[in-house]
Amino acid sequence: MEDKYISAAVINRLPRYYRYLGDMITQGIERVSSYELSERMRVTASQIRQDFNNFGGFGQQGYGYNVKYLHDEIGKILGLNVKHNLIIIGAGNIGKAIANYQGFESRGFHFRCFFDCNPDLCNTKAVGLDVHPMEELPEYLRNNKIDIAVLTVPRAAAQKTAEIVIENGVKGIWNFAHYDLKVPADVKVQNVHLSDSIMRLSYELKNTHN
Amino acid sequence: MEDKYISAAVINRLPRYYRYLGDMITQGIERVSSYELSERMRVTASQIRQDFNNFGGFGQQGYGYNVKYLHDEIGKILGLNVKHNLIIIGAGNIGKAIANYQGFESRGFHFRCFFDCNPDLCNTKAVGLDVHPMEELPEYLRNNKIDIAVLTVPRAAAQKTAEIVIENGVKGIWNFAHYDLKVPADVKVQNVHLSDSIMRLSYELKNTHN
Repeated sequence: MEDKYISAAVINRLPRYYRYLGDMITQGIERVSSYELSERMRVTASQIRQDFNNFGGFGQQGYGYNVKYLHDEIGKILGLNVKHNLIIIGAGNIGKAIANYQGFESRGFHFRCFFDCNPDLCNTKAVGLDVHPMEELPEYLRNNKIDIAVLTVPRAAAQKTAEIVIENGVKGIWNFAHYDLKVPADVKVQNVHLSDSIMRLSYELKNTHN
Repeated sequence: MEDKYISAAVINRLPRYYRYLGDMITQGIERVSSYELSERMRVTASQIRQDFNNFGGFGQQGYGYNVKYLHDEIGKILGLNVKHNLIIIGAGNIGKAIANYQGFESRGFHFRCFFDCNPDLCNTKAVGLDVHPMEELPEYLRNNKIDIAVLTVPRAAAQKTAEIVIENGVKGIWNFAHYDLKVPADVKVQNVHLSDSIMRLSYELKNTHN
């Protein structure tokens, strides 16, 4: 069913459903109606039903959805049943924070090592992972199947670094550099542009105080 | 003109305009047409004109926009001409990465100090800023005008921490905890949910490989 066109807005909401359903599993909740889920998530029940109908509806029967089934199905849609191998380029604070983040490993995101151009960091460990010199990146990628490169390099180095990983077969880039990468159509990029986020907050505060 | 209703989609695009215009100033570009800007930003020129018309159009005359003027006006709309005082709650890797991030200070985001509940970190320095114990947070907020609290605490502590800062007058929360905070209407929250972002990347990769 993944072949039919699903809007980006629906896809963008899936991780949030997944997160709430995971919390409900932790809380021992076995079934949930779209109304209850809508109360928790502060979206309308009709939105939830519409979103889920994109994927066949997830078999709501009698009293609502089976939480575990729904969680697992959304996980599969998100590709979380597949193991992803990742490298982090840039062993600074953001890179270390990501490698340390709770819950990535259990969702199949497996961080293999860091790369960094700082000779003081190379051949040391960062949060338990090896830090390799940047010069070794192309050879490493040829010898290891890496699905996602996490870019936490300065923005001036971002495009060049992206090109190296793409040339060596990486199809996914999680980009923390504050730069919109130019990549071929078969390469997928997700950006985390922190300044854009704080500027939106600044806008909202300004318009509250007016 | 900020009083009229502007859609969230337009607001979400403003930081990106601001970023591209800032780059053009660095490159010495003085004027730009909506067509040229659209080529750089990979959006349509008509989209750009529509967006800018929300703010009176920014006086495009003859050959395009004055880059510096446009940059400054968008900066003002985003509230970047106002100085914001921030504290960071949680002196871990993400907190340190944010305090260290280039370019926040020049846009008026002034990081004052950290708070952390780890006794080993308290009363030390992190990336040049003082780390205070959490117990001192309410008193600190009563004695200092803080506009934005950056939350980089574990998700289990997020709501409680948000309530403390809100009770003590903070109106803006930049939330890195993987939890959707419940806050009063006059408090503005911007979330950076890293797992949601990597799950979207996982989805896109899965649907590429199919």
